[in-house]
Amino acid sequence: MTAADTFETILEMRARAVEDLLGSLLDERILPGEIARPARLLQAMRHGVLNGGKRLRPFLVVESAGLFGADQDAALRVAAALECVHCYSLIHDDLPAMDDDDLRRGQPTVHKAYDEATAILAGDSLLTLAFDILADEATAIAADRRAALVLALARAAGAGGMAGGQALDLDAERTQPDEAGIITLQAMKTGALIRFACEAGAIVAGAPAADRERLAEFGSAIGLAFQLADDLLDLTSDTTTLGKTAGKDVAAGKATLVQLHGPDWTRRQLDGLVLQARELLKPYGAAASTLKLAANFVATRRK
Amino acid sequence: MTAADTFETILEMRARAVEDLLGSLLDERILPGEIARPARLLQAMRHGVLNGGKRLRPFLVVESAGLFGADQDAALRVAAALECVHCYSLIHDDLPAMDDDDLRRGQPTVHKAYDEATAILAGDSLLTLAFDILADEATAIAADRRAALVLALARAAGAGGMAGGQALDLDAERTQPDEAGIITLQAMKTGALIRFACEAGAIVAGAPAADRERLAEFGSAIGLAFQLADDLLDLTSDTTTLGKTAGKDVAAGKATLVQLHGPDWTRRQLDGLVLQARELLKPYGAAASTLKLAANFVATRRK
Repeated sequence: MTAADTFETILEMRARAVEDLLGSLLDERILPGEIARPARLLQAMRHGVLNGGKRLRPFLVVESAGLFGADQDAALRVAAALECVHCYSLIHDDLPAMDDDDLRRGQPTVHKAYDEATAILAGDSLLTLAFDILADEATAIAADRRAALVLALARAAGAGGMAGGQALDLDAERTQPDEAGIITLQAMKTGALIRFACEAGAIVAGAPAADRERLAEFGSAIGLAFQLADDLLDLTSDTTTLGKTAGKDVAAGKATLVQLHGPDWTRRQLDGLVLQARELLKPYGAAASTLKLAANFVATRRK
Repeated sequence: MTAADTFETILEMRARAVEDLLGSLLDERILPGEIARPARLLQAMRHGVLNGGKRLRPFLVVESAGLFGADQDAALRVAAALECVHCYSLIHDDLPAMDDDDLRRGQPTVHKAYDEATAILAGDSLLTLAFDILADEATAIAADRRAALVLALARAAGAGGMAGGQALDLDAERTQPDEAGIITLQAMKTGALIRFACEAGAIVAGAPAADRERLAEFGSAIGLAFQLADDLLDLTSDTTTLGKTAGKDVAAGKATLVQLHGPDWTRRQLDGLVLQARELLKPYGAAASTLKLAANFVATRRK
């Protein structure tokens, strides 16, 4: 097996573990403080979450936490919470008022499989569930770490992070942001959650502030690489390979760094970001080898 | 001044304090972990929050916290967090896919003043901000209480609480719930946040579990009274007095307890709930006098 094969095997293993946990978090059991779990809403939430995603963000949480010897069950719960936020954002982004997508991973989007109102509420409920999971004592870490995770995720996901990035993105056609504007937009829209994923591992483990900062920087580097690779694929790949429509950015009149600087520049940037990301992990030696492979994976993926 | 006048003066004073805090939480200052605060999104959030509401839920937080001698600034921040959740729910409920309302408190709803996508994101961001506020060390209480507040609010607001109640309400026309179904729906849709408001005061103060439970029961009683009074007004008042469309429930084919049992039964129920609510506060003596007035206010309001 090549290193890439090994990596994809680990990624898949982690994805299965987080899907199992998400499935059980979204079953019919009513928790203390809840009154009832409406069946149709719960089904819509499951539809939006249990869809066979790569689970890259959960993977990053679990691997980062592993660097510092964190409790694996606690890390997996944090990973599941983050995936709830990611999936809520996809459900809302797919709505007719937003990107208006009918399909995601070959399945009808939540508002197509159910209806718009249910999709809005399913997204709202998943976002809420994320904070429920983090704050719950069942995420067996000290209360100060649970509070720190809630705060960091809220900052990454809210108006100053992901949701704000989505707002900027909606305006981008009209405002035509310059290079600095594009970088801010992407750091918010996709970067912030990936950064949080890596930082969260250090928080779960109660790692020193310097390690937390180092992992956050690693997350920023691969978050940017993730977005550049995405834009590059949109420009250079075809719809069959991607499994989703290629050329969407150009069609939507959305400026990307790849369009500004071209594919060659982008490939050089990607190489630089992978190098930078791997360099940041040097202090952790062999323990960080899977995370280093993740940096390569993010930058070189074909779909 | 009558007791009711005194109560409304205190309610107004508390409303001003929480509006000031909400205004400063929604200003342009970028907090650690945030990347930028997009101006238009922030304006839409302010539009949805700073709209001159009665701020009943924040009032209940602050008064309940006062019973146990909690830090007033911490209580006010918790109150502001809860109001963010209440306002997010109104923004999303007003969307075309949900209740499709153009006006709220005589002002255009957020999707009318801005656009649907911005309204969705403003709601999402306010929900996220609520957990940010609760988890932040600036809410100067111990981390275990901050985590407990996040968890209790998430349970009250999520699929097993408010959002789930909204989902049941959307289905109610089709499913025609029986009396037990209506009670569950209302306990989720409006009751859960009012219950949390009262319980939160005890959590902020670190009050014993028995007091927390007692305040939560008080909240449940006035939450139910709030909804019965609302349904009664919808049936018996007119649009001019209400400041919103009367007779909406009947027009929408929505069953309410008032329709099942009539106005006289409802007035007797309201009297019973106020008595029960006041009885629950007996152990706190004169310190609870404003909260007791709140129970009367909720049951006897004219709009």
